[in-house]
Amino acid sequence: MRDTLRRIQKRIPLSIHEVPSGTQVFDWTVPKEWNIRDAYVKNAKGERIIDFASCNLHAMSYSVPVERKMTLQELRPHLFTLPDQPDRIPYRTSYYKENWGFCLSQKVLDTLEDGEYEVCIDSSLTDGSMTYGEYLLPGASSDEVLLYTHICHPSLCNDNLSGVVLAAQIAEHLRNRRLRYSYRFLFCPGTIGSITWLALNEDTVSRIKHGLVLANIGDAGRSTYKKSRRGAADIDRAVMHVLKHSGEDFEIEEFSPYGYDERQFCSPGFNLPVGCLMRTPHGRFPEYHTSADDLSFVQASSLADSFRKCLQVFEVVENNRLYVNQNPKCEPRLGKRGLYRPVGGQTEAKHDELALLWVLNLSDGEHALLDIAERSGLSFGTVAHAAEALAEHGLLKELGWSYARDKATFTVPVD
Amino acid sequence: MRDTLRRIQKRIPLSIHEVPSGTQVFDWTVPKEWNIRDAYVKNAKGERIIDFASCNLHAMSYSVPVERKMTLQELRPHLFTLPDQPDRIPYRTSYYKENWGFCLSQKVLDTLEDGEYEVCIDSSLTDGSMTYGEYLLPGASSDEVLLYTHICHPSLCNDNLSGVVLAAQIAEHLRNRRLRYSYRFLFCPGTIGSITWLALNEDTVSRIKHGLVLANIGDAGRSTYKKSRRGAADIDRAVMHVLKHSGEDFEIEEFSPYGYDERQFCSPGFNLPVGCLMRTPHGRFPEYHTSADDLSFVQASSLADSFRKCLQVFEVVENNRLYVNQNPKCEPRLGKRGLYRPVGGQTEAKHDELALLWVLNLSDGEHALLDIAERSGLSFGTVAHAAEALAEHGLLKELGWSYARDKATFTVPVD
Amino acid sequence: MRDTLRRIQKRIPLSIHEVPSGTQVFDWTVPKEWNIRDAYVKNAKGERIIDFASCNLHAMSYSVPVERKMTLQELRPHLFTLPDQPDRIPYRTSYYKENWGFCLSQKVLDTLEDGEYEVCIDSSLTDGSMTYGEYLLPGASSDEVLLYTHICHPSLCNDNLSGVVLAAQIAEHLRNRRLRYSYRFLFCPGTIGSITWLALNEDTVSRIKHGLVLANIGDAGRSTYKKSRRGAADIDRAVMHVLKHSGEDFEIEEFSPYGYDERQFCSPGFNLPVGCLMRTPHGRFPEYHTSADDLSFVQASSLADSFRKCLQVFEVVENNRLYVNQNPKCEPRLGKRGLYRPVGGQTEAKHDELALLWVLNLSDGEHALLDIAERSGLSFGTVAHAAEALAEHGLLKELGWSYARDKATFTVPVD
Repeated sequence: MRDTLRRIQKRIPLSIHEVPSGTQVFDWTVPKEWNIRDAYVKNAKGERIIDFASCNLHAMSYSVPVERKMTLQELRPHLFTLPDQPDRIPYRTSYYKENWGFCLSQKVLDTLEDGEYEVCIDSSLTDGSMTYGEYLLPGASSDEVLLYTHICHPSLCNDNLSGVVLAAQIAEHLRNRRLRYSYRFLFCPGTIGSITWLALNEDTVSRIKHGLVLANIGDAGRSTYKKSRRGAADIDRAVMHVLKHSGEDFEIEEFSPYGYDERQFCSPGFNLPVGCLMRTPHGRFPEYHTSADDLSFVQASSLADSFRKCLQVFEVVENNRLYVNQNPKCEPRLGKRGLYRPVGGQTEAKHDELALLWVLNLSDGEHALLDIAERSGLSFGTVAHAAEALAEHGLLKELGWSYARDKATFTVPVD
Repeated sequence: MRDTLRRIQKRIPLSIHEVPSGTQVFDWTVPKEWNIRDAYVKNAKGERIIDFASCNLHAMSYSVPVERKMTLQELRPHLFTLPDQPDRIPYRTSYYKENWGFCLSQKVLDTLEDGEYEVCIDSSLTDGSMTYGEYLLPGASSDEVLLYTHICHPSLCNDNLSGVVLAAQIAEHLRNRRLRYSYRFLFCPGTIGSITWLALNEDTVSRIKHGLVLANIGDAGRSTYKKSRRGAADIDRAVMHVLKHSGEDFEIEEFSPYGYDERQFCSPGFNLPVGCLMRTPHGRFPEYHTSADDLSFVQASSLADSFRKCLQVFEVVENNRLYVNQNPKCEPRLGKRGLYRPVGGQTEAKHDELALLWVLNLSDGEHALLDIAERSGLSFGTVAHAAEALAEHGLLKELGWSYARDKATFTVPVD
Repeated sequence: MRDTLRRIQKRIPLSIHEVPSGTQVFDWTVPKEWNIRDAYVKNAKGERIIDFASCNLHAMSYSVPVERKMTLQELRPHLFTLPDQPDRIPYRTSYYKENWGFCLSQKVLDTLEDGEYEVCIDSSLTDGSMTYGEYLLPGASSDEVLLYTHICHPSLCNDNLSGVVLAAQIAEHLRNRRLRYSYRFLFCPGTIGSITWLALNEDTVSRIKHGLVLANIGDAGRSTYKKSRRGAADIDRAVMHVLKHSGEDFEIEEFSPYGYDERQFCSPGFNLPVGCLMRTPHGRFPEYHTSADDLSFVQASSLADSFRKCLQVFEVVENNRLYVNQNPKCEPRLGKRGLYRPVGGQTEAKHDELALLWVLNLSDGEHALLDIAERSGLSFGTVAHAAEALAEHGLLKELGWSYARDKATFTVPVD
């Protein structure tokens, strides 16, 4: 993990935090630090039939040290396979119960013969620290957009690395832009990482006005967005708007308290507007949490598409201004301001003119640009462009930005 | 009717009330008491061709006494048949207009020849009293659940007897249970019975927090629930939840002011949360209000199923508690409390764990258990079980029961 | 246009207003007055190959005077045709940019040979006045129903004349009726007409409680209603109710700021409850804004049907009373008041009885008759008739009329 963070640091000025084992973070305690140097099972001939050096999934994460000879029967309860996917090595962890184990393919397991095996896990589980990376890219306002990705599945590509590289790429890209919001990037181990960050930053989390957890974001599947607990926060509406206007298939999921670190951001004591952007969600692709979730499973084109969609979402939240029509009684004359076509009587209203009319009609102080885009069915970009043109001509006055108007209400569907 | 009530009294300690004829009950007056000993039509040969002794549907209910000879032509306007169901005797009443009549099958009517007939209805319609039965099963609270069934169709089985036996069976069953609510059982004649009870108990009806009218509850059809006038009262949501999770077909009907005694409980001056639970609704089965609505039309298995569903509904309202998460910032560690599986990384979240997470996430003081069941899609039982486990571990604190939060609002659908 | 208004004046006592050119009306200025006497293009032989006298669409509206010889090449940019509909003459205007032009069929254009043409538009564009007609038919209240139609497309039948004759016919018809509302009829040029009227009557427009713009109201297509900006104003609900109960196909459109003069009435500074009733909307029939939108395109039966529907809408708004049940606890006895059938036990409830029960049940001071019609699914007429009968028997007390209860709220659909 530290190696991962150092690599990211080469591209963005990441702060690397170390939180000592034993630190109390809400109901949790930062655990001991786990390090592993080697792990193997040797057969009677001394051959490494399971070897951590060839694939670090072979050792169950957080395995305590072991160095013993034992029969296959004794070893068996410590061996994890995927009988349905006999070629693949599963990914297993035992964070909070001291245990040890090996993950291997069913095919290899089937070849093991009775007899004595030499079992070695050269690991340590000792007081140390938990590591996470953080980068705050300052914008005009101290209001923040949060991007969070977990970094604790070090050999898995879609379920982990895809989010890491996308977040890093976004950070690098946004550094060259003028930003209204400050953008906070967090690269943390799952669950304990977000809990620790929230515990350490409890007083300032209310700065987070929009947030996304990025996970499983590089496979070939369609985009999937899981709403925040609020369900109609601006981030939810912005992502849905972008997906709807993408012209591509997508899926929207209601919030549920099972998933990634949005669970912690959306716990009732925080209830932050943080959703989760994915392609194929966890557990819905057979490669999930197996050795097949590798570099070949992630597509460059999918990562690029996810990148574009994230930037479009930020375009929406950055520009979701609230304007007031300065000429609210009847329409203003667009023609004399060069905003309208000169010859009437033609059948088609051009889209841009329609956008001008929608913005004027709904800019009553109650509708921000995203509201107008949603009601009109036009894209946010078209609406924002029209608003700019109108503002330039003095027809609109900007009241400010809009993000705090979503209420944390839950309608209870009864059927 | 008094005989019916005395039979019920053998099983539950029913109070039998007598309300004198002439008592003013809101806009109504308790009518004269009708008794009938015999009724027949004899043909010229002195044969009883219509005989009350063989089936009490033969005499139109509330028929005034008559003892005369008359021609078939004179008799004809007093004879009621079902031409479309020629074998069946219809059920007819004339409560509020003095009249007399006989109900018979079309087949028998078709055999009648011209000539003189001896007509006798040996009834009395005199000042007396209206009878109803009432049983209050006390629970921990004086808040009440009302169960109401009409008892005035004495020879009809689905449209009457089914509700009577189900209510009696529920009463008997609940007597052995610890109850949060008090349960009030009413066995009354239709319309005038509920009006009279409401008039006599006007000051205390606000104790009724949930109520069901039971009718047509034993036929082989699917369960049908007609919502209360409020439309989203807890009783409405509880019944819909139980039916939705039953795995069986069911039907939900919006409130309408035509039906059984829920009409009175849901009149605008009371607007009580009382719905109507049925299987096939009145008028939608051909046996309705005919001699074919007999014991063979009602199924033991349907009655048993209705019984189970009622108990499940009461389970919901009895246990619809409101809790507050005592560890609202981030998730608490379930593992160290033995509430979670020890080995991570597996694909499937168990249902019970999901229930724990949902209860924690939504227990913000705004969501009672039924709200959580509805939003999560989990069954109420699963959610309640999770809440109990969390409360035992001090992770939830009970705020109280929830029933008063439904607003008596009506959304007006426009298309 | 003045001729049109004078013809209407023969049937209803229309006031004809003249507003001087140069008058400032909000962001607009009343333009110069355009008059045209003759317009033609002559070929080298001196033949009028385009002749305003044969069809006044030939001259682009608001063309400035021109009298010149020019080559076809010079003339070409001033000639407008419909290449897809080669037999038809288009309708074109140039209100706010000084220009001149001829409209002609593509077929005629195709016959034109190179050479010199004599071009003449004998028009004037000078200070004068803008004309509109207004008729206020007083009712019991100073609250108003607005009917607006544009009169500026003088040779087009569906898109213009149909609305003019329908509005005039309604005015004539309503003069013989007792009216609760005052009815204001406006016959104005499009856009500048409504803007001018609103500017001149800014202080009293709040009297308008319901309004309809009538346009394209005589073609053979189904009825189409475009909602007001409010979306759930009484006028919206009344029109939708009438269309829904018409037994005929219809279409409902959400408000959009593109269309007819409802754009001005629904601008955010006014936000009046004014919708637009049409048959086939502008731009959706090929005859639109062409010479084929003539008398043969409009059907007498369609006009008659639109007339009937308008009157039904006014029936709803005129009679949308709010009553309170005077016997709110339990149902009143309808039978003793002659409002109910005497013999019980029959399967079918008659529709009228159901209406009585619905009106009683929902007349709690919160539901006006249209609310009751919507919730019950019964027609407004049935409900209003039941309410009258109940009021006659003292069972209902009228609280007043209901129109101001719609909130100008906009729900933002997210998908």
